[in-house]
Amino acid sequence: MTQSVLSPASKFKLALIQLGGSANKQANLTKARSQVLEAAKQGANVVVLPECFNSPYGTNFFPEYAEKLSSSPSVDMLSSVAKEAGVYLFGGSIPERDEKDDDKLYNTLTVFDPSGKMIATHRKVHLFDIDVPGKIRFIESETLSAGDSLTHVDTKYGKIGVGICYDIRFPELAMVAARKGCVAMLYPGAFNLTTGPMHWELLQRARAMDNQMYVAACSPARDMTATYHAWGHSTVVDPKGMVVATCDEKETIVYADIDPEEVQSIRSSIPLYDQRRFDIYGDVAETVVIDENGNGVKKQ
Amino acid sequence: MTQSVLSPASKFKLALIQLGGSANKQANLTKARSQVLEAAKQGANVVVLPECFNSPYGTNFFPEYAEKLSSSPSVDMLSSVAKEAGVYLFGGSIPERDEKDDDKLYNTLTVFDPSGKMIATHRKVHLFDIDVPGKIRFIESETLSAGDSLTHVDTKYGKIGVGICYDIRFPELAMVAARKGCVAMLYPGAFNLTTGPMHWELLQRARAMDNQMYVAACSPARDMTATYHAWGHSTVVDPKGMVVATCDEKETIVYADIDPEEVQSIRSSIPLYDQRRFDIYGDVAETVVIDENGNGVKKQ
Repeated sequence: MTQSVLSPASKFKLALIQLGGSANKQANLTKARSQVLEAAKQGANVVVLPECFNSPYGTNFFPEYAEKLSSSPSVDMLSSVAKEAGVYLFGGSIPERDEKDDDKLYNTLTVFDPSGKMIATHRKVHLFDIDVPGKIRFIESETLSAGDSLTHVDTKYGKIGVGICYDIRFPELAMVAARKGCVAMLYPGAFNLTTGPMHWELLQRARAMDNQMYVAACSPARDMTATYHAWGHSTVVDPKGMVVATCDEKETIVYADIDPEEVQSIRSSIPLYDQRRFDIYGDVAETVVIDENGNGVKKQ
Repeated sequence: MTQSVLSPASKFKLALIQLGGSANKQANLTKARSQVLEAAKQGANVVVLPECFNSPYGTNFFPEYAEKLSSSPSVDMLSSVAKEAGVYLFGGSIPERDEKDDDKLYNTLTVFDPSGKMIATHRKVHLFDIDVPGKIRFIESETLSAGDSLTHVDTKYGKIGVGICYDIRFPELAMVAARKGCVAMLYPGAFNLTTGPMHWELLQRARAMDNQMYVAACSPARDMTATYHAWGHSTVVDPKGMVVATCDEKETIVYADIDPEEVQSIRSSIPLYDQRRFDIYGDVAETVVIDENGNGVKKQ
């Protein structure tokens, strides 16, 4: 049974780069690079880029912009700027081409430590397939495959969980991350003008409140000349579920101080971690399934 | 694996009675009775009373006001008014004394059909033990015992899940209820002037959005002469997570039309039910645990 399990963590300054992108990959990389350096100059220790920061967001663009991680100009830039800036860099996401199967693409987050080493990857596990009649239709699975695992990143500031955009709609990711000791969930994401005003902030506040952890989501800036109109409004929510930093739809960097004491404080005031009733409902972080031989086995 | 599973349901009119209570049990019962009749007169089919509607809210009051369900003036009133009004009555909660163990008390919801038959009970499963320094300290477990099961009520309008107040902080109740086919979660509850403005509405919106179901919470009216100051603001949230009916802190009745079509509509636009990844995290509604003999067994 998971109880109060925050892994060792210390204060840090988080920066969300709400990047204005374009159809020019090289220009996107150059701009992202300069913004990461700017965030570091302002004292950021952990920097986040938005979803698909090197490519326009659209299933037709993904095959053209996709890169194998083993030979990726985007990964090279991210690694080098993480080192130059001396920050942990959660490199938003890029369309990734499978190393072995050229037809297989993913929406993939790569994470770098301050030495430039890639310390984690996360392939979006819930693809964005929605159809709100007359409003928005987007079927990411037309060109992308989904990832198969959850990702928690060890940093010197603490353990950090990640998801990409639509992943935030599934509460289990944040529930598992919090119960595994993460101090924050970071979601690069590009909600739109329908789902953005409806749920972008509410989802972040819900995940933060329910799991008593920090939650941040980093969007691209809005470009009304692009085919997909991102909501923007990159936001940081504290462990009480309150918005502590946000912005509008324009290009900017959002900063917030992350303080593990705040996590401990709300968890001791409202001690959900000691009060959960895993005797009457399941713990998504400690799941047991019956295997092919009929034996109960623990997952994860 | 649970998928889109809304049980057969039809439209109904919901009423939340934000009752102004007192220390006089008989007066509370009389007033509750007249308000249920008033709601029925306005066309309500399903009526909800607040938490501890027959008693002041406080651990010192519970022993004095507690009743055994087998010989309960409160249950008698609820049964008779449900029949007279011809409504399903979710009778808020009352302090319940265990049938066999006089020292054991619960915070218990009783539910009646339009014939006056008691069709379900729910004992609060998460007791309200919190301590926000300088703001609010309340240790419900000083006098109450917790319930041991989840409750889903079959009505002719559809299946309805319930929780009491602090239960709403634990997302699993609504997750399980939705996945078991419930169209709505109803929470009689009495948040306070600290937790109310912080989380009352956010919790309801989060449960509704994540589970694409209706959520309603019914509070007592605020009484600043009582020892516990309820937040009020009884609220109904639709399956998109939007507030469709609410109020301030004063005595009133909140009405809302519940439409299962709205549940199906958002579930087909944003089909979370077909997209969950129970291959990589657990399904709280289909939990398997290892029993004392080391065998995997399915719970619930």
